[in-house]
Amino acid sequence: MSLTKTAIIGCGTIGTSAHMPGYKAASDIAEIKYFVDILPDRAQKLRDDYGKGEALTDYRDILSDPELKCVSVCTPNYSHAPITIDLLKAGKHVLCEKPAAVNAKIAADMQRAADESGSILNIGVCNRFNTAVCKLERLIASGELGGIYHIVCNFRAYRSIPGMGGPFTTKSMAGGGVLIDWGVHYLDLILYCAQDPIVKAASAATYAKLGANMKDYVFTGMWAGPPDYSGVNDVEEFVTGLVRTDGPTISLNGAWAQNIGESDTYIDFLGDKGGARLKYGGDFTLYGTRDGMLTETKYQFTKENMYDEEIRDFILKSKDGVKTKANIDQAIKTSRLMDMLYESAALGREVTA
Amino acid sequence: MSLTKTAIIGCGTIGTSAHMPGYKAASDIAEIKYFVDILPDRAQKLRDDYGKGEALTDYRDILSDPELKCVSVCTPNYSHAPITIDLLKAGKHVLCEKPAAVNAKIAADMQRAADESGSILNIGVCNRFNTAVCKLERLIASGELGGIYHIVCNFRAYRSIPGMGGPFTTKSMAGGGVLIDWGVHYLDLILYCAQDPIVKAASAATYAKLGANMKDYVFTGMWAGPPDYSGVNDVEEFVTGLVRTDGPTISLNGAWAQNIGESDTYIDFLGDKGGARLKYGGDFTLYGTRDGMLTETKYQFTKENMYDEEIRDFILKSKDGVKTKANIDQAIKTSRLMDMLYESAALGREVTA
Amino acid sequence: MSLTKTAIIGCGTIGTSAHMPGYKAASDIAEIKYFVDILPDRAQKLRDDYGKGEALTDYRDILSDPELKCVSVCTPNYSHAPITIDLLKAGKHVLCEKPAAVNAKIAADMQRAADESGSILNIGVCNRFNTAVCKLERLIASGELGGIYHIVCNFRAYRSIPGMGGPFTTKSMAGGGVLIDWGVHYLDLILYCAQDPIVKAASAATYAKLGANMKDYVFTGMWAGPPDYSGVNDVEEFVTGLVRTDGPTISLNGAWAQNIGESDTYIDFLGDKGGARLKYGGDFTLYGTRDGMLTETKYQFTKENMYDEEIRDFILKSKDGVKTKANIDQAIKTSRLMDMLYESAALGREVTA
Amino acid sequence: MSLTKTAIIGCGTIGTSAHMPGYKAASDIAEIKYFVDILPDRAQKLRDDYGKGEALTDYRDILSDPELKCVSVCTPNYSHAPITIDLLKAGKHVLCEKPAAVNAKIAADMQRAADESGSILNIGVCNRFNTAVCKLERLIASGELGGIYHIVCNFRAYRSIPGMGGPFTTKSMAGGGVLIDWGVHYLDLILYCAQDPIVKAASAATYAKLGANMKDYVFTGMWAGPPDYSGVNDVEEFVTGLVRTDGPTISLNGAWAQNIGESDTYIDFLGDKGGARLKYGGDFTLYGTRDGMLTETKYQFTKENMYDEEIRDFILKSKDGVKTKANIDQAIKTSRLMDMLYESAALGREVTA
Repeated sequence: MSLTKTAIIGCGTIGTSAHMPGYKAASDIAEIKYFVDILPDRAQKLRDDYGKGEALTDYRDILSDPELKCVSVCTPNYSHAPITIDLLKAGKHVLCEKPAAVNAKIAADMQRAADESGSILNIGVCNRFNTAVCKLERLIASGELGGIYHIVCNFRAYRSIPGMGGPFTTKSMAGGGVLIDWGVHYLDLILYCAQDPIVKAASAATYAKLGANMKDYVFTGMWAGPPDYSGVNDVEEFVTGLVRTDGPTISLNGAWAQNIGESDTYIDFLGDKGGARLKYGGDFTLYGTRDGMLTETKYQFTKENMYDEEIRDFILKSKDGVKTKANIDQAIKTSRLMDMLYESAALGREVTA
Repeated sequence: MSLTKTAIIGCGTIGTSAHMPGYKAASDIAEIKYFVDILPDRAQKLRDDYGKGEALTDYRDILSDPELKCVSVCTPNYSHAPITIDLLKAGKHVLCEKPAAVNAKIAADMQRAADESGSILNIGVCNRFNTAVCKLERLIASGELGGIYHIVCNFRAYRSIPGMGGPFTTKSMAGGGVLIDWGVHYLDLILYCAQDPIVKAASAATYAKLGANMKDYVFTGMWAGPPDYSGVNDVEEFVTGLVRTDGPTISLNGAWAQNIGESDTYIDFLGDKGGARLKYGGDFTLYGTRDGMLTETKYQFTKENMYDEEIRDFILKSKDGVKTKANIDQAIKTSRLMDMLYESAALGREVTA
Repeated sequence: MSLTKTAIIGCGTIGTSAHMPGYKAASDIAEIKYFVDILPDRAQKLRDDYGKGEALTDYRDILSDPELKCVSVCTPNYSHAPITIDLLKAGKHVLCEKPAAVNAKIAADMQRAADESGSILNIGVCNRFNTAVCKLERLIASGELGGIYHIVCNFRAYRSIPGMGGPFTTKSMAGGGVLIDWGVHYLDLILYCAQDPIVKAASAATYAKLGANMKDYVFTGMWAGPPDYSGVNDVEEFVTGLVRTDGPTISLNGAWAQNIGESDTYIDFLGDKGGARLKYGGDFTLYGTRDGMLTETKYQFTKENMYDEEIRDFILKSKDGVKTKANIDQAIKTSRLMDMLYESAALGREVTA
Repeated sequence: MSLTKTAIIGCGTIGTSAHMPGYKAASDIAEIKYFVDILPDRAQKLRDDYGKGEALTDYRDILSDPELKCVSVCTPNYSHAPITIDLLKAGKHVLCEKPAAVNAKIAADMQRAADESGSILNIGVCNRFNTAVCKLERLIASGELGGIYHIVCNFRAYRSIPGMGGPFTTKSMAGGGVLIDWGVHYLDLILYCAQDPIVKAASAATYAKLGANMKDYVFTGMWAGPPDYSGVNDVEEFVTGLVRTDGPTISLNGAWAQNIGESDTYIDFLGDKGGARLKYGGDFTLYGTRDGMLTETKYQFTKENMYDEEIRDFILKSKDGVKTKANIDQAIKTSRLMDMLYESAALGREVTA
């Protein structure tokens, strides 16, 4: 069988460290043909690392290649939509990084383009391929926790604003701050594990305090590059919220930065029969009862690389036109929820769906 | 100087273990004259422990004693109001246990009775006399944390429903469950430390799942007595909420019982200059910055007994008609906030003040 | 501006892992012209890694190059003096690794040569460029700890004799054992942080027990190379001492090897107003009081690479003839103190300055 | 067999909590006949607790009772000598609390009185009866550690000055501060475990900084009673020292109070074959080698109450005129060592025996 021809658009951190290894691990079924980045050096460097393929600066140059089937879009958030829509119109299957778009309206444009094209559009909801998340989702689906009535969601770090003054902290490029960047992962896996409840209302508040004056922000390290004090920081660094669905309620607190030197990054699923605490990116513990005793159970298992799983799922299923759990139809729900939270924060009151 | 004559009405747990030692510690200024309980044995036992005074079963028998000045009301929640109002009308100063009443409307009746009588009505908001809380309140007032924009409030235990089937779990007697029983302490000290912000809106959900069928509730111990399976359990065991004020927002999660085997009982005050994590009933840690460095500071200090402080404050200040931080004028704010949270949970939407 | 031409003499561990990266990081102001080692392979390997410059085996071949300004001396201790003195006489600025020499008398010869030449002689007291040490020194200078009256100095490891039988354990080459090798760092940073007190008396004892018979020495790893059982081990592996100054007293215990399986490597600065525990190579914690409370404060900050700072300081300041905190005038004080400790150990009694 | 008649002189903390239970535990061989204290209430209270015997205020009233054989002296340090000497002259065996006296000269007077009387004088070196200490002493005696060459002695607490302004901090009553109060225990058990080395020289420095102005001393609790600000505090709160013997050297750091919030209370015995870390009042760990491997061994054992052992040893052996490990002949060595340390601290130089 011939290898599916693929491309990576956007050769930055996520393209290099997640998609590239994913395609390498899928070398039995796919081969990268194009590496695209507006910075020629970044494209060339990735191409050289791969050892074959072509480095380009304009993604439009690959649209008409009939051999190209599957494309990863790893560019900044604001450009997800135009690139993805162009690719879909050209008949390519797309795996676009999360969040789908800077807001749900634009994400809906992407969804529509996918529907009209007949091509597959997946979003990089990688946690749906995290082994612990998948195991927990299966346990919940089997009724192990009974009915889940509330979920506590914490994505709170100490001082971790990424690349201050760059794309991450510029609203026009990212769409938002800690909610759209970290919260998207947490909310998406919550919707997934909680068996896809329908959001009814959301209430939130967002804050940007510690980084309000960028030069006053004290930090010990900064991922996504050093601060650019000439840049923009107009996104939230803290978010709190309460979500009502037709199933469980969800309370959330998230911080890129806060004056609390603890790292609380976990999700509690509260069920009437049992409960689970999932450490984000780690393991989970189940609490239940048995024969009048309280039980606390830790699960160990072999962990697959979630990016490898995500890429393989994309290549194998898109070929047959199968919409998987990573499809825009699922991911757009998280975008809609985030839009509601942002709207509530802006209005200072609860908003309904 | 002659000793102020006092009485304890309600000789149960809180009367015996908190008020009684408080009056003993205040033996230089006060003397207990009456011990009242509808169960004669309980009243007599407390009287014998004290070594003097009179044991009675009906509080109305002490109303007309002109020598009696100060009275502690330590009965179940539902009887706080009628007893307190009778005492105030009789010209007594009252220290009524928390919560003031089963709801804010009744608490307002008590406040009105105090205003009309000219007597002092304090509520047992003992945490306002906890040394750590007081130290933290002073640090916040001094600007150490800068402006506080959000407060995370966790009063989550594993399996701690008190006296299931008894007064604690019977709504007509207690007014509610974990929110009115534990949450009242947390919310009151939050309002106190946060310099008395005005509540604007509240959103909440409450749940009673693990104890829904009392006999299915598995537990390893139960404070406030063993379960009474013939009794009633119609109050919430879990609450989640989001509160908007003219100052910080407050997110809260509280559990008498939940299927998560962790005990998370702390309050985070997030300020733009610094933050503090207060372990409930324990110490606090401050996080700030200095000369471009991040600082984490633990404070140690001599701890006074909060009940002793509360009783002494009551005796000394009521005599002069001074309204202190424990006055109903302060405590009623927490009652109003809890009413809003309960109303929001009942309606399934945010409510405004 | 043209780049300052430099050289590294001694291409072993410290030259390769500390000086070389330091010069690379200073590529905006300096360029390495010569790599010198009596083992040609080591010099060539370092030159190849750098990508330019010349590899040589005899340092005398570079003395007459007028373009060469700054030289790092990274050879074994016993050769520090002859090489450094030759370089100074040839008009070069020198950064010589610590300890300055195998004893203080020879270090004084080096100091004299520097004075006579007018060139700068720095010693590799790298901890004076460690960010934590610098921050703590500034806090002490500001009076944060009040008057420091005693310093507890622990540099005790479990089983860490380096390169047994080689230069480290041969007295004629190293001058001593754990005191001159590890203690030199601790004592130097103590004198620096304690604002340069004048040593008055010293008492010490030294021991070589576990390695007395080299083949009986059990270890799990050995830095600085595997044991050479045909070599010499005639230096101390343990030292204890008490130092009197015109300021604080200093007690010290140091072990390359001891039969205690704990690693105690920290310095306590005891002041009358506050105290600090500095983990060697790590962070520090300050203990003080505030408003009648005890405080414990941990500081976090961005850490610079101390070798990079040391090299940059050397290049920039030597050009202008500026004596910095790394100058031989400072470092020789530690050499003199170590001499006193060794003399006291030999005599079995306290010695005075 | 008839019960040995005993007495307790001094019914304060140590008499009440250590000697009294010790005599109770020895009720098969001894009976307390007299309880003596200059405060009649204290004597009476202890007598009432015991249930028989006589409460007195003047110890001279019991000297002529021929039935009385064994007496515990539990008064403040300064009165140890006069009372003990009177008792010995009257033919009584004495167990005098530690330290023997406020200095070694007076302790020698006590030793002489014992020799002249033919009676037994034991000192309350209770750690010699601590099970862990005894087990470790036996292991050392058996050669398990080989030759011990150095001992690290730490008795450092955070903020624990006892009964500030009272007998503990008044030099004329106590003889000194942390060295004579805590250090006496550590040094005595070191001499015991190290097989009784002969002290040759000692160097020390002592400090009184945190309590210099008593009202400025911040603390969270105070054993031996609350501060008496009208009293005296003229003893050291910190001591550092280095001791030379004909066997191992000993380095020591001790603090009643220091601005380091760690509690380091342990003794390390460094031997050429093995080492031991003994947690004061707790267990010990042995480090050694076996078949080329490093070994770390924790020992568990049933612990006897050391006071019970001490009292029983006193009653049983004094009857037969046997000098045990608790005899003044042993304990005086610690007194002499402490005198040397205090003298060295006063002179600012090492002193020889």
